[in-house]
Formats: sequence, structure tokens, C-alpha cells
Amino acid sequence: MNAFTPVTLPKPDPAAVQTVVEALTARFGNRAVTSKAVREQHANTLTWLPVEAPDVVVYPQSTDEVVEIVKLCAAHKVPMVPFGTGTSFEGHTNAPIGGVSIDTSMMNKIIAVHPEDLDVVIEPGITRKALNEQLRDTGLFFPIDPGADASLGGMVSTRASGTNAVRYGTMKDNVMALKVVLPSGEVVTTARRAKKSSAGYDLTRLFVGAEGTLGIITEITLKLYGIPEAISAGICPFPSVRAACDATIMTIQSGLPVARIELADAMQVRAFNLHSKLGLEEKPMLFVEFHGTDRGVEEQAQRFGEIAKEFGGGPFEWATKPEERTKLWQARHDAYWAAFALRPGVKTIATDVCVPISRLAECVEETHEDIERTGILAPIVGHVGDGNFHLTPLVDPDSPEEVAVMQAFLERLVERALKMEGTCTGEHGVGQAKMKYLLKEHPAATLDAMRAIKHAFDPHNIMNPGKIVQF
Amino acid sequence: MNAFTPVTLPKPDPAAVQTVVEALTARFGNRAVTSKAVREQHANTLTWLPVEAPDVVVYPQSTDEVVEIVKLCAAHKVPMVPFGTGTSFEGHTNAPIGGVSIDTSMMNKIIAVHPEDLDVVIEPGITRKALNEQLRDTGLFFPIDPGADASLGGMVSTRASGTNAVRYGTMKDNVMALKVVLPSGEVVTTARRAKKSSAGYDLTRLFVGAEGTLGIITEITLKLYGIPEAISAGICPFPSVRAACDATIMTIQSGLPVARIELADAMQVRAFNLHSKLGLEEKPMLFVEFHGTDRGVEEQAQRFGEIAKEFGGGPFEWATKPEERTKLWQARHDAYWAAFALRPGVKTIATDVCVPISRLAECVEETHEDIERTGILAPIVGHVGDGNFHLTPLVDPDSPEEVAVMQAFLERLVERALKMEGTCTGEHGVGQAKMKYLLKEHPAATLDAMRAIKHAFDPHNIMNPGKIVQF
Repeated sequence: MNAFTPVTLPKPDPAAVQTVVEALTARFGNRAVTSKAVREQHANTLTWLPVEAPDVVVYPQSTDEVVEIVKLCAAHKVPMVPFGTGTSFEGHTNAPIGGVSIDTSMMNKIIAVHPEDLDVVIEPGITRKALNEQLRDTGLFFPIDPGADASLGGMVSTRASGTNAVRYGTMKDNVMALKVVLPSGEVVTTARRAKKSSAGYDLTRLFVGAEGTLGIITEITLKLYGIPEAISAGICPFPSVRAACDATIMTIQSGLPVARIELADAMQVRAFNLHSKLGLEEKPMLFVEFHGTDRGVEEQAQRFGEIAKEFGGGPFEWATKPEERTKLWQARHDAYWAAFALRPGVKTIATDVCVPISRLAECVEETHEDIERTGILAPIVGHVGDGNFHLTPLVDPDSPEEVAVMQAFLERLVERALKMEGTCTGEHGVGQAKMKYLLKEHPAATLDAMRAIKHAFDPHNIMNPGKIVQF
Repeated sequence: MNAFTPVTLPKPDPAAVQTVVEALTARFGNRAVTSKAVREQHANTLTWLPVEAPDVVVYPQSTDEVVEIVKLCAAHKVPMVPFGTGTSFEGHTNAPIGGVSIDTSMMNKIIAVHPEDLDVVIEPGITRKALNEQLRDTGLFFPIDPGADASLGGMVSTRASGTNAVRYGTMKDNVMALKVVLPSGEVVTTARRAKKSSAGYDLTRLFVGAEGTLGIITEITLKLYGIPEAISAGICPFPSVRAACDATIMTIQSGLPVARIELADAMQVRAFNLHSKLGLEEKPMLFVEFHGTDRGVEEQAQRFGEIAKEFGGGPFEWATKPEERTKLWQARHDAYWAAFALRPGVKTIATDVCVPISRLAECVEETHEDIERTGILAPIVGHVGDGNFHLTPLVDPDSPEEVAVMQAFLERLVERALKMEGTCTGEHGVGQAKMKYLLKEHPAATLDAMRAIKHAFDPHNIMNPGKIVQF
């Protein structure tokens, strides 16, 4: 297998596909779309994996409608691909053997907010920014922030995390319950609204990170948090990546409840300067943010400044004004787009690995040496509090040599992370592109166990086929 | 089905059982025990469910030995029951159709501590107290504390939580990876040591709370935390359970990072006084504990005192001296045993439910009314920060009338919790005794999904059969 040659799957019967497309068009009218542009937009937009378009895109408005669609597809053994906003990186929404893309963007309501219980029940199509805008008056917010304005259904499905997972955890830690339409059309509710439960197998966590291969999520109960009384953010340059990582380790170990702690290497800082006109010193840089009371964040920022200094970092400049903070974090969030400023006109494969934090400096340093040796342009940003970092190698897709160099580089990156007890993906997920790395990460028995789950839930391999594990 | 009439299961072939017992005795010598006393001690000690003893108890010392035992049992289709310390409440370790109890108490080593990564790799038989004693010199600790000195393997398997889950989460949140011997004898490692991962289905969480029905855990990687610089604890009486619950809600909502917040009702306080000679005012009482810096815990305690006062609570007395704190928490931990002081000579069924915190006061009040109406003696303690509470109804097991009254009372308790969007068990697990409640808690499709997982992993139903869901 190879990241760029997807798994071979038996194609569905063309007549069955035709029947399903016609039935959907008859039933859903202009909510069932077969135009090439829309179909291709639902395949895969953010990688250079081959575009594999579905045969039809349908926009349900309720769980009942999803059930209808799923039962129709199941009856004809036609594949389904759940779709949120299409901002995932690994080909999750591609339709390798066609079928029906089920776009949840019209299921974007808040069903219920429970301020006393610090939870909210939502439909899967709402995006994280829309959710937080609608929550603002309650004084509560949902913290998980993968950068893109992804749908919550997509974030559940890729087990997303992002910049402030170091404080609030990942989607795994913040989903309380799900409603899921299984490949059979049966509707499962995974849990009730109690904060904890020992009532049977943890179906919630089974669907978190399942990338839509076990069912379609139609309702999500999420934990919420009080909007912090005070937020302060700052940046701190370091003499080396190692120094920045060591300062991060010390920060985490000392129990400082940092909300975000993000590394950008010198090349990424250069990209920020070019893209966002920031005028930052082009050295490895930590972006940090603290949440708490006024006194609390002041104390935290001060302690962080002291730790940074111990490792030769500084000056630590901090911004408590919202507009300065927004500017800084907007720059950080634009890391992916900023990277292109370093080499306009090329493409990239944004990738991520995650290692135990004690190995992070070593892993980033070795990766830097590899970057220098191969002459590749690959800025690094990292959620370093979690040991997770991202690369955006900038490569001319029309140059087979460059593509080959990058592929070999990515292989070595994963090998390096795995050798250090890490994982081939901290938060992007497997999709199509990382299936081959999963084979290296897990022993055969583990992959067999995953496959057993897939077979138990989706015996005909009609739910987002060709993702995560070979059927 | 009924809590006291376990599921009917086909018995294994007696000749096959005989063969397995002989093979184990030959292979493991005095680490395979068939004495009635040891077998019965491995069945079920903490409920009055009928004792269903295994045919043999075997004490493996390594994953390889567990694999040997499992393969032997699998070859002869003889049931296996994993065993930790036997402190679970719902008949988890009973062997309804006999077979082999696999006691992990000799697998009790720490395999590796990684202080920089704040994690530890252990064998499943180590108990939480032994773990924390051995960790002490590192300045780190494992916070989850269900009261009993349970084994970590058992705590993983029941998704245990306990008094400080409100701050540190439950086992679900603190297990990073597992090594598990499946019913086939295959060995699965669920994840690597990276702090987060999106590399496939979350097998870790699937085994957390599976009560040993999907495999036998032989290695556990746990998150650790720095021992707090300062700890302060205190108690605060309230005029009513509702006032105590309302103060708890306010505490949680205001973001006060309380480490423990425990309710005891007036009857339970009376039991504490009788059992631990405490001389406490016999009113609803909150036990609280704060972790942090010296300044931090002082600030937290002060804010909590103010909140308590708003709801008519007080005086809030707090103890920073370790010996005072230990005395208080020892009393709290002895709640189960203390209950018997109220009516010596009887038995109890310790049970727990969990509701959204906004419904907690209502749920406890209605339960109190029910207690008064039925004349049952049932003190209540609760991990109220999570909406979770425990009852220990004290009943003469030789009185069919009392037993019937209690059974009806427990039914109503579960119905009440479910009606309030709660769960039939917050942390004890399902085992045998709560299977019938699981049928009320989850829709049929959810139970079918759980059953599908069980069938996928254990097609012959030999791994802890007769627990959680009907096969």
C-alpha cells in the first residue's frame, strides 16, 4: 500500500447506485445534488490525494432523514461518506468507489444548552465558531480548537484536538454522548447526560475517532467550560528548538495550567512574518496562553517567564488586550496558509506526529537535520505541551523527484516518531493517506481487533469504505 | 431477569473443565489452587449475590503465562474470570458456570516510570495504595481513588472513579494504553505512549469498563500527576441536602478547581460518628479538599466558605494538617463499613447512580422521601461534584419481606435516576446485578451494538460470561 494509491475496493453495482441516486433526487429534490463541482468539492480539497468524487451529495435535515438515506443505501449496498466541512487532511471524505456523500451542514442547530450541567446538545453540522458565537451569552464556551472552523461532527470523527488540548483535552475527553445512525439504519444513543457512567462498553469513545466508518453521528452532547475571567497570551523566542521544548517540559511538569503552548520553528516564524506582516524575531518561538482569574494568569505568566529564562528564552512579551491576542493567535492559526508564503505556487501535505513529551526535542531536532539534509522546505509548528507537531513540506506536485523526496521524508518522520514510542498521527486521523502507517504503528493483533469492530458494525463495508483499516 | 437470579448460560463440558484444571495444576503447581475456600473467596465477597465459585484459581506471573492459560481455556471452551482484589460490588468476579479464575495479584510490578512524561507502566495486579507508595519518591501520584484498595486492573475494568474524579477524571481519562490478552490468546497493545493519538479506533477506552468480558488486561500505562504542593481539606454542615447540592453546583460552575467534594447525609454522618468516633454535627455535610499552591488552596478554601455561607452552610472547618485530613478522609472512605454501625448484623447492597448535577438535589430528596416512606435504613454518600451518589440499604438477608422492600426500593432508585437523564451506575459497573437495569438505561439498538462487540471479540462467550449484556 502507498499513501497515494488508495486501497482497492470492490465497486458497488452501477445499477444499484443509479437507483439510489434517483431515489434520493426524487425524495430530497434540490437537497440531492449531482453536479460535478459539488461532488468534487465533497471529495477532498486539502491534500493532493486523487479526487474521488461521490455520485451524489445529499443534505439531510434530521436524524430521521439520515436514517432514510442510510436504509436506502444499505438496501442497495451503496457506500456512504459522512461530510462535515471537508477540512480534514487525510482523504477522509474521498469516495474511492463513489456512493453518497451525506453532508450534515444543514443539521447545524443547538438542540439544548444546560448551563448548570456545563453541557450542550447539538447537531453535528454546526461549526466550532458558530457554536461558540451562539453560546457567548451563557458565559460558557467549547474550547477544542483545531484551527480550521470545522464542524463538530467532523471534529468528533477525527478525534480532533488542537492548540488548547494541553489544558482541556481532546474531543475524546469532551464528548459526553452521541446519537449515531449505524450502517444498518439502526439509531444508537451511546450514553445519557450523567457526567460519568460505568453502564457498559464505552460506545461514545468508539465513535470518537472512527472517522465515520462505523456510523453517521447525528447528535452530540459536549462538555462546556466557563469563559475564563482573564486570558493572557504571549510569545517568547528561544535560542534553539531544544531550549523551547525543555522549557515546555518544565512548564508542564511544574503543573502550571497553561491553556496553550505552541512551538513554531524559525522557518515557520519567517512564514508568519511574510503572511501576517508580524516582524517577529526569526528564531524558535513559543506562543503561550493562560486562562484563569486576573491574579492567576498574572502569576502563571510570571512563572512561565522565569522558566523560559532558565532555558535562555526571552524576552517574553505578553498581550492581555484581546486585539493583540487575536492577532497573535490568528497568525498561529494561519500556519498552514502562511507556509505557502515561503514558496508560492507549490502544494503541501500537512502532516502530524506525536511523541512522548520527553522525546519531543530529539524528534524535532532529528527532523530538522533530515530537512537540512534533503533540502526540503518544511516549516514546523507544534502543540508541544502534548508532544504533537505538524509539518507542511512545500513541494512542486508536478516534479516527480520532489514528490519522491517528500514521500521518503514523510516515511522517515513516521519511523522516527514510532521509534520514540509515538504515533503516526496525534490529531489529523488516518483517512486514506495514513493507512499504511497504521500498519507500522500497531501490531497485527491490534489491527485485527480494529477490523473485527468494523466487520461487526458494517459487515458490507458501506460506511466510509477504504479508510483507517483494510476491510 | 432479576438481580438475584443470574443469567442462564450453557455450562461448559465437565470433561473439558477437568482437562483444563489438570493441565493448569500440572503446569502451575501451587499457583493453581482448587481448594473450596480459595475458590469461593474468588467468587464474590461484597454482595449477597449467590456465590458462584470457579473450578480453579490460577496465579500467572507474566503476560506470556496469561496467554498460555487463555489459549488452554480457549482450546477447551472453558470460561475465564479475571480477578484483581475482588472489591467490586456487582458480582463481576462470580463464575456463574465455573471455569478458571485468573488472579493477577502476582503481576504487581511497576514496569517503568517516566517522570518527564508524567506516566507509569504497570502490571494489573498492583493496588492503588501500593502504586502510590512506590511512586512517592518521584513526587508524582496516581489520583483515582475508589475507596477500596483495588487493583489497577480491576479499576480499569470497572471504569472506576471515586472521590477526586471531579478534578482528575475517572479511569477513562487516565489510562493511556493497555496490553490485553484477547479470548483467542492474541495479545493486543491498544496504543503507544504518546499523550494523544488519532491512529484508529480507541481500543483503550473499549477495554476500560469492559469488566474483563473482552480480554484480560496484563499491562497498563497510566497518567500521573505532581503531588500538590499544598492540600487542604475541610467539612461543612448544611441545613438540607438541597442546600449542600446547590453549594456544590455553584462551586463547580464558578470554576473552583475543587479536588474532592463529597456529600454525606445526616444518617451517614451518624454512621461516621458511631464507627469512627467523630462527634460531627448530624446534618448533611460536605467534605471538601483542595490541591494547589499554598496561596491557591487558601484562596480556594476561602471562596468555598463564601459559597457555602450563601446557601446557609457552615461553619466551614478546615484542616491543613495531614493527620487531621487523613482522619476525615479515612472516615469518608469507611462509609461502607460505617453504615453497618447503624444496624449491626445485617447485610447491604452498596449501589450507585449518577445524574446530571442540576438534578442531583431533586434526586437525593426524592430518594430521601422514598426512604422515609418505606422505612428502609439507607445512608447516602455522594461524589456530588459528578452528580454521583451511593446508597447502602441495611437489610436482614433472612427476611424475605425486607429483601423485597429493598429490591423495590432499588428499582425505584434506578427509575428515578434514568428519568432524570442519569445512569444506573456511575462507577460500580454492571457485573451481574445491574444487567437488568442496563436494559432500561439503553435502547435496544445500543444494547445490540454492545452485544455485537462482545460477539466480535469473544464468539464463544468464554471471557467473564454472564456479565454486562446477555450474549
